[in-house]
Amino acid sequence: MPSYKAPLNDYRFILNDVLKIGGYANLPGFADISPDLIDAILEGAAQISEEVLQPLNYSGDQEGCTRHADGSVTTPKGFKAAYKTFIEGGWGALTSDPAYGGQGLPHTLGICTNEMLSAANMAFCMYPGLSHGAYSAIHAHGTDEQRRTYLPKIVEGSWTGTMNLTEPHCGTDLGLMRTRAEPQADGSYRITGTKIFISAGEHDLSENIIHLVLAKIAGPGTPEGIKGVSLFIVPKFLVNTDGSLGARNAVTCGAIEHKMGIHGNATCVLNYDGATGYLIGEAHKGMRAMFTMMNEARLGVAVQGLSQSEVAYQNAVAYAKERLQGRSLTGPKAPDKPADPIIVHPDIRRILMSIKAFNEGARMLMLWTALHGDLSHAAEDAKARELGDDIMGLLTPVLKGYFTDKGYANATEAQQVYGGHGYIAETGAEQFVRDARIAMIYEGANGVQALDLVGRKLAMNGGRAIFAWFALIDAFLTANDGNAELKPFLDGLRSARTQLEDGTTWLMNNGLANPDNAGAASMDYLYLFALTALAYAWAQMAQVALGKPPGDQGGFYANKLATGRFFLARMLPDAAAHLAKLKTGAAPLMALDADAF
Amino acid sequence: MPSYKAPLNDYRFILNDVLKIGGYANLPGFADISPDLIDAILEGAAQISEEVLQPLNYSGDQEGCTRHADGSVTTPKGFKAAYKTFIEGGWGALTSDPAYGGQGLPHTLGICTNEMLSAANMAFCMYPGLSHGAYSAIHAHGTDEQRRTYLPKIVEGSWTGTMNLTEPHCGTDLGLMRTRAEPQADGSYRITGTKIFISAGEHDLSENIIHLVLAKIAGPGTPEGIKGVSLFIVPKFLVNTDGSLGARNAVTCGAIEHKMGIHGNATCVLNYDGATGYLIGEAHKGMRAMFTMMNEARLGVAVQGLSQSEVAYQNAVAYAKERLQGRSLTGPKAPDKPADPIIVHPDIRRILMSIKAFNEGARMLMLWTALHGDLSHAAEDAKARELGDDIMGLLTPVLKGYFTDKGYANATEAQQVYGGHGYIAETGAEQFVRDARIAMIYEGANGVQALDLVGRKLAMNGGRAIFAWFALIDAFLTANDGNAELKPFLDGLRSARTQLEDGTTWLMNNGLANPDNAGAASMDYLYLFALTALAYAWAQMAQVALGKPPGDQGGFYANKLATGRFFLARMLPDAAAHLAKLKTGAAPLMALDADAF
Repeated sequence: MPSYKAPLNDYRFILNDVLKIGGYANLPGFADISPDLIDAILEGAAQISEEVLQPLNYSGDQEGCTRHADGSVTTPKGFKAAYKTFIEGGWGALTSDPAYGGQGLPHTLGICTNEMLSAANMAFCMYPGLSHGAYSAIHAHGTDEQRRTYLPKIVEGSWTGTMNLTEPHCGTDLGLMRTRAEPQADGSYRITGTKIFISAGEHDLSENIIHLVLAKIAGPGTPEGIKGVSLFIVPKFLVNTDGSLGARNAVTCGAIEHKMGIHGNATCVLNYDGATGYLIGEAHKGMRAMFTMMNEARLGVAVQGLSQSEVAYQNAVAYAKERLQGRSLTGPKAPDKPADPIIVHPDIRRILMSIKAFNEGARMLMLWTALHGDLSHAAEDAKARELGDDIMGLLTPVLKGYFTDKGYANATEAQQVYGGHGYIAETGAEQFVRDARIAMIYEGANGVQALDLVGRKLAMNGGRAIFAWFALIDAFLTANDGNAELKPFLDGLRSARTQLEDGTTWLMNNGLANPDNAGAASMDYLYLFALTALAYAWAQMAQVALGKPPGDQGGFYANKLATGRFFLARMLPDAAAHLAKLKTGAAPLMALDADAF
Repeated sequence: MPSYKAPLNDYRFILNDVLKIGGYANLPGFADISPDLIDAILEGAAQISEEVLQPLNYSGDQEGCTRHADGSVTTPKGFKAAYKTFIEGGWGALTSDPAYGGQGLPHTLGICTNEMLSAANMAFCMYPGLSHGAYSAIHAHGTDEQRRTYLPKIVEGSWTGTMNLTEPHCGTDLGLMRTRAEPQADGSYRITGTKIFISAGEHDLSENIIHLVLAKIAGPGTPEGIKGVSLFIVPKFLVNTDGSLGARNAVTCGAIEHKMGIHGNATCVLNYDGATGYLIGEAHKGMRAMFTMMNEARLGVAVQGLSQSEVAYQNAVAYAKERLQGRSLTGPKAPDKPADPIIVHPDIRRILMSIKAFNEGARMLMLWTALHGDLSHAAEDAKARELGDDIMGLLTPVLKGYFTDKGYANATEAQQVYGGHGYIAETGAEQFVRDARIAMIYEGANGVQALDLVGRKLAMNGGRAIFAWFALIDAFLTANDGNAELKPFLDGLRSARTQLEDGTTWLMNNGLANPDNAGAASMDYLYLFALTALAYAWAQMAQVALGKPPGDQGGFYANKLATGRFFLARMLPDAAAHLAKLKTGAAPLMALDADAF
């Protein structure tokens, strides 16, 4: 049976030693987060993850969710009790607004707890995860009354939320949407249509479910396409003025999708048959409301990629230490046993080191990015807020695309360590692969992330974000110039940065003349960007580790440096290949007629 | 629902135009294979694949196999009738020895039919596939009596076969095996032990199942470890001297494994409780018997990788042409429709072209290799037989490792084309991923293939095979020197060849001094080798296509060249990254103590 142990020392190292989060105590939300508070939160999240959620991961996958004839849905055995424990511990309210019962802590810290919870049980965590999406939408765009009505219940977890975008014929291109909203005399709307792929769409964990639904307002004033989409609140149970639950609304679960993975989460077809809904934000500005939440939601999916890579890694390591098969190429390492544990074999090491180097670099990069997200709201200086926003926006598609691709690839590599046993359900290795797969698809398929990066984020504000990015790297290189021990990391970073600049210049020179060049280069550019960002993350960690902070137990810093050196030797060389490919442009991709495929 | 269309024009092009298989008519087995016969066989295999096997692929996955309380196993609905059609068509006997009822055709042709059948229904094809493994073992190592007793029934398909190697505690390291064979007074053995992961181990398709079982003979004469393993025939029903079926043998299916995919194939735990078995080949030489079959079996698994890549590609193409979402970056391509089909988007093209370029290159390389396998037996000249054997041995781990890795990766990429719909079972896209996954694991996990390549195949006979490989490429480059149109392909091949030689030299210089260097480099070396081999395959196809053979319908040759150019631009650049990584040696991988993971 698989297990999970939260990487607490890694969080402590990144938060305290590298990001020096204590230095932001002057900012709202950061004031109280002493190393002790950080420890208490990390340890609490580790405990519920390891002891409550992880034991339900395999059973939840095997059992799945059950839809009954009346459209109600039962979650797997144990999920209801676990959800109670989860909300009683306040784990859904960590970063929420204190005005509505939240704890108001920085997202940087929330990212740590999210990684742990999701590593332990990704399908389970999507229930509160979607609630957080609904919370953010109502918090950012709702009226005071809407906030007062819905947010306290969502924050405490007695109500959950969903996001309803996709319809059978449209996902990425939401302008094709058919769900209609008929204005009513009382100012509400009657919502009619079918939404699919609705995560946590119906279940038995909470008293009410608040659906956030994109629809087009019926009538001549609605613009065509994507500009005519509005956002609505559609509660499963209508809410009386005193806050108690009223009539059952006309939204029902028509089916649960049969999916490759995340079986513990109910992915629903939701049928709206004249359901009562309430406009949130301005009419026809529904997509704008979505976009303000998108960076946060997409970083959340990036965390899922990392989380599955981490838990798959841990279990593969345990297997590699235990499984006896063959002898080391350099002579027996366990001569007293019938064979050596397979962790002695270099190709097993290659797999494990690749995943480890990704996990630790990605964790640093994720928290560094999240800190910029926090600073985009909390920093005192407008310039610092702008920088935070620019970096968060620029890196979001990079992290979503790369971390989820790697999450899946790494779960697959980890599965390979088990040999034939990895193909068998009981070891749990194949579940990590199936669960990780969805993160490459939802919240914008990774190809869409790549297009967001090259087509939107690079060009925004005259390229301000990408110039800021290069400036940050250059400042780091300059500040550490002459640090001989750090030199391999500086050289790797400098080389990657130069290649990224080369690729960026190529895009500027060729993407405008023929937009297909930008599209053709987009995914390789995203990978090149991600490798550069990891090189930056590793250089920052190496710089701290080389300073040998006091209290190195178990060789933590030496191991960190060795893992970083593996990244330089074995992962960073791909940057050049991505650059070479992207510069070949659109012609090789677009040469064939569609009929020739 | 997914579908499949056999790539008949591709086979015709490779067999007739590139390999010029008609030129081998002087060799046994090749005499009759005119273009007409090739067409008849290809079209027949296409028909059963498309019309009989493919329609059972999804339903077979959903239903799976059922084990009953008495240990009997029922295959999915429709499999039994399909198997009857299969054997009546003689599809299991195509390449078998005419002395036992086979048709004696070259394996090169058998590879084509195997790709089609496996693309249509991989789980189904493993039943006759395992039979062929048992056939080969008995044909190569059985006594005349054993051949006469078992082969006609296996060739006609009324009996099937299995291969029993793995035990719960040992797979790759078969020296740890515990299954025992007690010699009996009548010369037979009593076999006792448990074998796991036995594909097609028990089912309802055939009258009898002939298990080939590795076990250790009980007694003081049996050497320790791998040198003490013998091979036995253990029929499910004992066979009377008149060939009729006798008593039920003491081998039973204890369980069907719960697997990630290939649910239509019964992967069994087989319990041997003093079952009657017959030694095949020499005592204690069981592994040698296995090795003689290994190249063929491993190439068969490589074909599975290609097959899943092909069928996943075809279905993704159909979806990409049909699904309307967004507009082309260069302006609407279907202005009469609400959106353009997604095949207009460059990143969708990137995915489809990547898979197409692999499939067509891999198909050529596979058939070229299989032809060398045929020549290793059939060529008149001893030198040509030696070359065939060398090339077949050298390329087998390359194709098994690379084709199955790519089969899975490509099935995953194809799934991505569907967006959210790819994660839903009904589209069939996720089944291709789950089915393709096993091919990376069985018949020697791909890490073992890489070690076989660098640790065994490179060094055999003083490096004769790798020198022969370089000589073939050099001869091609020389013969085509000055062909201006072919130059990009020649340049790509020359560059890859130089890098492969560089990597080979590095291995020679560093692998002996520290064997961990060879292990650490092995997988990147295998990938570098595979890319070089694909560059060679593409150069050969391009050379023919540029010659514009008569009868180019639908721009077949022009499309072939465009696809080859995509390979050069977008896939071959990875060769340099693999070379850079492998030359970093073992140190970055082995730096950490096992405890540090």
